[in-house]
Amino acid sequence: MSLFRIRPVATPAMIATFDDAATIADALSFETALARAQAEEGIIGADDAAAIEAAAAAFTIDPAQLAEDVALAGTLAIPLVKALRVKLIGDAAKALHYGATSQDVADTALMIQVQRGARLLLADTDRIATALAPLAERHAATPAIGRTLLQDAQPIGFGLRIAQWHAGIAAASLRVTLEVSAHAVLQWGGAAGTRPYHNGRSANVAARLARALDLADAPPWHARREGVAGIAAAIGILIGALAKMARDVALLAQNTVGEAHEPAVAGRGGSSAMAHKRNPTGCQTVLSAAYRAPGLVAGIISALPAEEERGIGGWQAEGPMLIDLFLLASGAAEAMASVAEGLDIDADAIARNVEAAGQENDIGDSVALVGALLVLQKG
Amino acid sequence: MSLFRIRPVATPAMIATFDDAATIADALSFETALARAQAEEGIIGADDAAAIEAAAAAFTIDPAQLAEDVALAGTLAIPLVKALRVKLIGDAAKALHYGATSQDVADTALMIQVQRGARLLLADTDRIATALAPLAERHAATPAIGRTLLQDAQPIGFGLRIAQWHAGIAAASLRVTLEVSAHAVLQWGGAAGTRPYHNGRSANVAARLARALDLADAPPWHARREGVAGIAAAIGILIGALAKMARDVALLAQNTVGEAHEPAVAGRGGSSAMAHKRNPTGCQTVLSAAYRAPGLVAGIISALPAEEERGIGGWQAEGPMLIDLFLLASGAAEAMASVAEGLDIDADAIARNVEAAGQENDIGDSVALVGALLVLQKG
Amino acid sequence: MSLFRIRPVATPAMIATFDDAATIADALSFETALARAQAEEGIIGADDAAAIEAAAAAFTIDPAQLAEDVALAGTLAIPLVKALRVKLIGDAAKALHYGATSQDVADTALMIQVQRGARLLLADTDRIATALAPLAERHAATPAIGRTLLQDAQPIGFGLRIAQWHAGIAAASLRVTLEVSAHAVLQWGGAAGTRPYHNGRSANVAARLARALDLADAPPWHARREGVAGIAAAIGILIGALAKMARDVALLAQNTVGEAHEPAVAGRGGSSAMAHKRNPTGCQTVLSAAYRAPGLVAGIISALPAEEERGIGGWQAEGPMLIDLFLLASGAAEAMASVAEGLDIDADAIARNVEAAGQENDIGDSVALVGALLVLQKG
Amino acid sequence: MSLFRIRPVATPAMIATFDDAATIADALSFETALARAQAEEGIIGADDAAAIEAAAAAFTIDPAQLAEDVALAGTLAIPLVKALRVKLIGDAAKALHYGATSQDVADTALMIQVQRGARLLLADTDRIATALAPLAERHAATPAIGRTLLQDAQPIGFGLRIAQWHAGIAAASLRVTLEVSAHAVLQWGGAAGTRPYHNGRSANVAARLARALDLADAPPWHARREGVAGIAAAIGILIGALAKMARDVALLAQNTVGEAHEPAVAGRGGSSAMAHKRNPTGCQTVLSAAYRAPGLVAGIISALPAEEERGIGGWQAEGPMLIDLFLLASGAAEAMASVAEGLDIDADAIARNVEAAGQENDIGDSVALVGALLVLQKG
Repeated sequence: MSLFRIRPVATPAMIATFDDAATIADALSFETALARAQAEEGIIGADDAAAIEAAAAAFTIDPAQLAEDVALAGTLAIPLVKALRVKLIGDAAKALHYGATSQDVADTALMIQVQRGARLLLADTDRIATALAPLAERHAATPAIGRTLLQDAQPIGFGLRIAQWHAGIAAASLRVTLEVSAHAVLQWGGAAGTRPYHNGRSANVAARLARALDLADAPPWHARREGVAGIAAAIGILIGALAKMARDVALLAQNTVGEAHEPAVAGRGGSSAMAHKRNPTGCQTVLSAAYRAPGLVAGIISALPAEEERGIGGWQAEGPMLIDLFLLASGAAEAMASVAEGLDIDADAIARNVEAAGQENDIGDSVALVGALLVLQKG
Repeated sequence: MSLFRIRPVATPAMIATFDDAATIADALSFETALARAQAEEGIIGADDAAAIEAAAAAFTIDPAQLAEDVALAGTLAIPLVKALRVKLIGDAAKALHYGATSQDVADTALMIQVQRGARLLLADTDRIATALAPLAERHAATPAIGRTLLQDAQPIGFGLRIAQWHAGIAAASLRVTLEVSAHAVLQWGGAAGTRPYHNGRSANVAARLARALDLADAPPWHARREGVAGIAAAIGILIGALAKMARDVALLAQNTVGEAHEPAVAGRGGSSAMAHKRNPTGCQTVLSAAYRAPGLVAGIISALPAEEERGIGGWQAEGPMLIDLFLLASGAAEAMASVAEGLDIDADAIARNVEAAGQENDIGDSVALVGALLVLQKG
Repeated sequence: MSLFRIRPVATPAMIATFDDAATIADALSFETALARAQAEEGIIGADDAAAIEAAAAAFTIDPAQLAEDVALAGTLAIPLVKALRVKLIGDAAKALHYGATSQDVADTALMIQVQRGARLLLADTDRIATALAPLAERHAATPAIGRTLLQDAQPIGFGLRIAQWHAGIAAASLRVTLEVSAHAVLQWGGAAGTRPYHNGRSANVAARLARALDLADAPPWHARREGVAGIAAAIGILIGALAKMARDVALLAQNTVGEAHEPAVAGRGGSSAMAHKRNPTGCQTVLSAAYRAPGLVAGIISALPAEEERGIGGWQAEGPMLIDLFLLASGAAEAMASVAEGLDIDADAIARNVEAAGQENDIGDSVALVGALLVLQKG
Repeated sequence: MSLFRIRPVATPAMIATFDDAATIADALSFETALARAQAEEGIIGADDAAAIEAAAAAFTIDPAQLAEDVALAGTLAIPLVKALRVKLIGDAAKALHYGATSQDVADTALMIQVQRGARLLLADTDRIATALAPLAERHAATPAIGRTLLQDAQPIGFGLRIAQWHAGIAAASLRVTLEVSAHAVLQWGGAAGTRPYHNGRSANVAARLARALDLADAPPWHARREGVAGIAAAIGILIGALAKMARDVALLAQNTVGEAHEPAVAGRGGSSAMAHKRNPTGCQTVLSAAYRAPGLVAGIISALPAEEERGIGGWQAEGPMLIDLFLLASGAAEAMASVAEGLDIDADAIARNVEAAGQENDIGDSVALVGALLVLQKG
């Protein structure tokens, strides 16, 4: 296993959100909440549900051995349910995972984690918004050279560029909120998506199950994945919006430009060969994520044409790609929050560069535009 | 030029929406509407605006020659504005394209086309919804074998699968509507996005300009492209939702399955070698689009970290990729609308296959789920 | 149709290589060469082959009408063969397209075009190599500041950077040569890839057919597309290697850096708003291609798992994506050839920047490395 | 950390090839081999090299703590070299990592792992070739219905389809061999790629270093990554070639087709809901990899236009994506090797389906083509 590849690009909190321990716990939550909901609707016995709950509470398993079994079975739920079932007897054993399928467990557990992961991301993008808004206002009227195609263009208010970062990250965060809220919902359909063996009571069971898991209720979507693709795209776009800011900061930090720098952090941004260097390591983290995210979004979209009631290959590929997007987004959002909070702006360099550009010193309606951009996502 | 590559994957109406004639016309609309708005706000003279409008109305240009000039200049607006300007004299020549940049023209013209293109798409997805809903209801209680991982699983109501197609396409269409409505908006910022030379009146000009072009008003977003990425992702996901249906129809049409077939269309689906064949050509069109769309979405997301006030390469790549998505979506939506309207369902084959599967004949709560799925996007 | 989207990113010669007229001509070449080869092996009559050849030579068709028929049929060969067949009578009509399928025509015509397209590309990458090698040598010992993570690092020989561009483009060109030579080969298999109706003489027919079309002979590969994917990847990587140079030139051309600039070309790189600007339009063309190419390569790789003897959707998507790669590569290679041939290097700026960096003035073994890099691909 | 996401898609041997322990060991090998080579060329003292070697041999470190330091520093080598250096005194401390940079360590260690990883992959593709060749020959003349666009087409020899799988996987394996052999080579250039402080002896040091590490010697390629992209594309295409076979086996295993099945493996392919099911879990593993690989290849190609002497973001993204490709390929190759070795072919079903198709029973030159395909990659 390689922590070296994951830890530098993801926050510990996000890694924990999707790790094996969380996945086992969330899968067990699904099973116990389903049993309880079914008991409340009279589908299984109340004592069977209680037995399942007790067994789940006492359940322990070696993740490494379980991973081997998962690799063999092709799905988490099969060995997990089997291992839990041996702790049960009689009707309780039969009542476990009743009318459910392994995809129900995997999808619902994943959506619980997506909800948690999105909250983590939005906490960091909130930090960015809080840090950037006053910076944009403070520098709204500071003439700085605007650049297009990497060439000096016309002067802008330096804060206008910051306000654009703010607006882009805010709009991208809003999309994450909307997609996660609409699509990170309960999945429960049983083997082929019909909610079998419930004799018309499945809608009630689903409503109770959703409530217990703090997810929105929804009809099964086992082979209808456009909601997951929407979440994935929103995360990929958020990474891109963060990387827009990172790209600009890295360009501004060039030695010949020097208009802004990442905050200095002890142990960060050094060089194994050059003691003098101050590398834009936060920007690097975000830009690195931005090279990886598009292919993950594309992979998830490419899996949409799933075969009939559960696809072969596409669905199994989707989860790991979605999780990678959340991991990358966590590192990117955290890195950019640190950069936003400590951005080191050099007013002299800004003035020097705009003067060197030799343009008429007109920043147009930059100040008004900063105002318009900062309120953009509040409404 | 190759019609052979474009016409088979796109509708004539969508091709026309984004073709050279439309692009010239939409670019001219931007210039004349800008001049009028500026005249109304006293930025340029009213007679200059009138002269610009008259010149634009009388303007003709050879698209092939213009394309050569565009290739040299790297942007449409430079040669187009230049060609229009030679028709003007004095202040009117100076007033043309005043406080605007080539990206303003290109982005705004593209968003006008995106609005039109989205309407075309939604007309076809409406046809699909209208066709599928009664089909789903009619076959809601028809036992059919559900299949997971391409293997017989449990019986489902045949209409449940159709209702899932319906729900997926409807949800994907809704995302297109939301993204286009939020993000296909006016772009006007001038050379570096400051709306220069307007002395505080640029917000008024922008509001008038937007109204004249029937677009929503917005602050400039020249280097903040997450909205375009959202539109692109929505189109890519729509293609995927259409392809989910196409995949299933193609699988159901296999000779050994035979549960449903595309409608027979004269001249369609034949074979150059085998007279007996009835190929699922409509499904092929959609699935083909689904192989091409993910890379286009990824490309657009990868361009988000644009350099400063206008990126180099990323922005220039975005437009063609977005247009390709709309072209592909048009062919896919039209093909699937024809398939939905004429889907040929073979009840005998359905019954034969579910019987051969030898499962207990329980379709669970399929009927109720069909109902729940069909109302899903109406609210 | 949009010339505006294609002409700025592709050379006229490459556009012509893949246009409709070329495709009709190459498809007819396949049919006539097949008939002649079959006649020589006694599969069809010699006079029938002669009649086919005569009919093909006299054949004309409206590409726009043909495109409509192609859109309906889902393949070029069906309407084309039909239109040619009505010009023939009796056995000659039967002999046309004998033992062939529409995919044979499409794949073989495409491979003829790929061979031509690769020659065009390699002519331009040869121009680049010819221009860069002496530049690298001339500036091998010129101290320049090397930059990592966009920060000043250690001095390098300025020519070392150029030699790296050279080596990357040369290696990428070599991959194109190898992949095209190995995989742009004859496709002929008939309806299901068995070369039917040839009674053991199909290997001879294939050998004759390949020779006539100036392609290498090969067993059918109708549903085995890893060779096409190899060609696509090679083109995508070539675009990336060109874009590495473009990225560096664009960075060096920044106003605060000024170490190198694209050559000034009349009508190129201007701005619709700023007369003073000299935009790196050639670099823009290449970088733009580099944002579009990865998704095209990914799309082609994603289509590899084709269904049985001909896939549904994947194969149909592959051709347009491969052609897009060649179009983009043509514009990129031509743009970078012009840049390489006219690269405007500013020795004063280089000296100023390396001095400002304040590093020890040691360029290590840069000169020897330039030598090693320049001979790298000659062997 | 999540074993659940990695173990089901990768073999233990491949996971170990790229895990943290291997990476530390390979990084230390680079440092000791560099010191030894430098000592042999008189750049550092022989006793300093010996001290470095001894310190490295005795070195231990907590991977979790190191991962935290890597996350902070943005690179593995900085904290690793620092931790090793504190074990050294005087000149030996200075001699460690002399004239090297963190990217040298990372790239060279990765290429050592790529060489190992490729050998693991090729061992499994050899198993496939060994299993498929006799199967193809045995069934070469067995009439089976060929299918195009998922529709019955013409009869083929059943072995012809198998021979095509064989040829595709063999050709893709050959590309892996060629790319890895050409491009998984030594990287050593120092901070900016000049091999500083070696006074003309760097070529000798490099040659010794390469030999010690069992890699081919090469000039530095720190910012010239088309070789890595070639390796990545080759792995992605190999996954696609494996998935072509997996797609066909999954289609053949459909209940209504039944012509071939994966071997039954205890604990594999079951269902949490349906005891009767025999899922094509091996095919699922491969197809799942095929949905993930294209985006990884695209991501690596998109990172080619690296900024100057080391890119920001692109290079850092490349390694994890390349490793993911090897991990996915390992699971795919192993799964398909098991399927190939135990493929369960049902001659009765094949005969039944070809008869039901009602085509003339002519398999053309299938037998000869099987022969031609099986020898294709031997030459």
